[in-house]
Amino acid sequence: MVGGGQLARMTHEAGIPLGIRFRLLSDTPQDSAAQVVQDVRVGDYRDLATLRDFARRCDVITFDHEHVPVEHLRALEADGIPVRPGPDALVHAQDKGVMRARLTALGIPCPRHRIVSDPADVRAFAEDEPGATGFPVVLKTVRGGYDGKGVWVVDSEAEAAEPFRAGVPVLAEEKVPFTRELAANVVRSPHGQAVAYPVVESVQVGGVCDTVIAPAPGLDPESASQAQHLALTIAHELGVVGHLAVELFETADGSVLVNELAMRPHNSGHWTQDGAVTSQFANHLRAVLDLPLGDPRPRAPWTVMANVLGGDFPDMYQGYLHCLARDPALRVHMYGKDVKPGRKVGHVTTYGTDLAQVRERARHAADYLRGTITE
Amino acid sequence: MVGGGQLARMTHEAGIPLGIRFRLLSDTPQDSAAQVVQDVRVGDYRDLATLRDFARRCDVITFDHEHVPVEHLRALEADGIPVRPGPDALVHAQDKGVMRARLTALGIPCPRHRIVSDPADVRAFAEDEPGATGFPVVLKTVRGGYDGKGVWVVDSEAEAAEPFRAGVPVLAEEKVPFTRELAANVVRSPHGQAVAYPVVESVQVGGVCDTVIAPAPGLDPESASQAQHLALTIAHELGVVGHLAVELFETADGSVLVNELAMRPHNSGHWTQDGAVTSQFANHLRAVLDLPLGDPRPRAPWTVMANVLGGDFPDMYQGYLHCLARDPALRVHMYGKDVKPGRKVGHVTTYGTDLAQVRERARHAADYLRGTITE
Repeated sequence: MVGGGQLARMTHEAGIPLGIRFRLLSDTPQDSAAQVVQDVRVGDYRDLATLRDFARRCDVITFDHEHVPVEHLRALEADGIPVRPGPDALVHAQDKGVMRARLTALGIPCPRHRIVSDPADVRAFAEDEPGATGFPVVLKTVRGGYDGKGVWVVDSEAEAAEPFRAGVPVLAEEKVPFTRELAANVVRSPHGQAVAYPVVESVQVGGVCDTVIAPAPGLDPESASQAQHLALTIAHELGVVGHLAVELFETADGSVLVNELAMRPHNSGHWTQDGAVTSQFANHLRAVLDLPLGDPRPRAPWTVMANVLGGDFPDMYQGYLHCLARDPALRVHMYGKDVKPGRKVGHVTTYGTDLAQVRERARHAADYLRGTITE
Repeated sequence: MVGGGQLARMTHEAGIPLGIRFRLLSDTPQDSAAQVVQDVRVGDYRDLATLRDFARRCDVITFDHEHVPVEHLRALEADGIPVRPGPDALVHAQDKGVMRARLTALGIPCPRHRIVSDPADVRAFAEDEPGATGFPVVLKTVRGGYDGKGVWVVDSEAEAAEPFRAGVPVLAEEKVPFTRELAANVVRSPHGQAVAYPVVESVQVGGVCDTVIAPAPGLDPESASQAQHLALTIAHELGVVGHLAVELFETADGSVLVNELAMRPHNSGHWTQDGAVTSQFANHLRAVLDLPLGDPRPRAPWTVMANVLGGDFPDMYQGYLHCLARDPALRVHMYGKDVKPGRKVGHVTTYGTDLAQVRERARHAADYLRGTITE
């Protein structure tokens, strides 16, 4: 696996019982996954020679993130090393412009969008064109954004200058008046076997995933099934191998629009570690190794995942003790990261039959660990 | 953790989400746990200098097995390094003579027993003493036995020569006419918090654990509670820190006798990985680190664990594919070991509401992986 973040850490954890020998290419020896994996190569994934040398001893290559240049992936494939997901799929998770064009061609519902060239063009997109939806407009650099970075919401032409300063293409999208965000997560293997997890609700705070509720409360079975079908269609059409997260906007009339794609284990699937028969991490590995996929069904009526963000206090130990003592059924997942304000340093999950209670338990633990509450 | 076997492998796996930095002292770099842990020291735990050097960088020492000499553990404690479980507790898992004497003094029911000096003394134990229970008699070397090794069942004085050849003390025990074997597993922390897992039935084949059923079918709640209480009493009285497995004989009248003790995660507790809210491995770590313990309750009405033994075919890959495809809810736990006939190379767990079905699924997978069945 290329990339030493928490996704690689948790993928290794899931691979241990499967008997998988896990090799890691990590930026530093201190990275989250590098702390817990035996076979770590420290190096820069942007350097093709490093990547090639790393890949030579692997049966298959997969990723903790989407930042490996597509041309490097093509070089690995030319060397005869399976890359999963492959570059032809992965480009849709790397480039929002490519993704929007492809999904639109497939008839997948997306927010109204087009590549814009300057602030005046943003105004034209917002106000002048047929079907124009007005301001505010969402502007995104087509590459490199995550967790709210590389995304701007602007109310006028005057506010639209900033995104163009980096000199990379900018995508304009209507700001969808969504009622909530959902995620439809699926896993697909090279021979086309696929499984769909229950559709979840994802609660974002400041552009960062805060809480995930599985399954999405009140989502009618027909809509859930449609969202799953949409994710399976995208996985099939784009040739995704491994875990695909399809982030969705739900609108007032119950329809859904695709927001983002991620082709790797994803924050909206962390609940599966404790809440599903087979976790997203185990199924991602099973897919990239072309093993039969595991059962994606939930183990409890409700599972809630809450991210633990760093707060003002670098030492979480006292909060950790408190949370374990207060709730013996709490499941904590710490990433081994230094605490910095706002940084994702772990997550907790809770599960049970009473959603309000399950949610309160997760919320309390995450807030207590962050230091937002002290009782 | 001292010892690189599968128990260390699975303990590391359980420690990753807890954010624990796991260091391993392993006999070889190929040992089961050494394949998956970042921080591995290869060395001989019987060498005090090696052990001391390893321990110097640890906050607490715990064990994959019970073979570290007690005098070494005392030396570590004298160096100021917490050893959990400590030598005063661990000696009861190392020496069956010490264990029997202590449990008897505590009034814990045990099979009739005493240390014997030669075959004639075995006959005296079997036939001449007050309360003699006759042949067959079980003979055990007081140290070093496991999985049926170091244990003999003899029918006469003439058959009793073998156990004395090694020149180590031999314990004679009545052969208890048990109806089945149970295990009561508990975890205790340094400040005395303790949790008790449901009592399980352990089915042995040829002296090796074959299948574990959680909870033990048909065990009345009163007997289950008594067995849990007995295990908690032993943990408390012996000052155990960490996981304690109390292997029990159940007799026709429903009473239980203690067979063996193990002070570490134990085969009879593997079901907890998928069947309990908190696994034995996570709770062992929580105990030795003096963290609050996790909920030991079951997640499903029935969980069955079946050991996967090596068969005649060194390559299990085809069987592995078959089992994953046949039963998407099967949980496999492979140890990364070379396959040798009769060697424990992994286990599987299944859970659900219908015991017969849950048991058949586990049995099928274990037998198929071993190569005993091919359909």
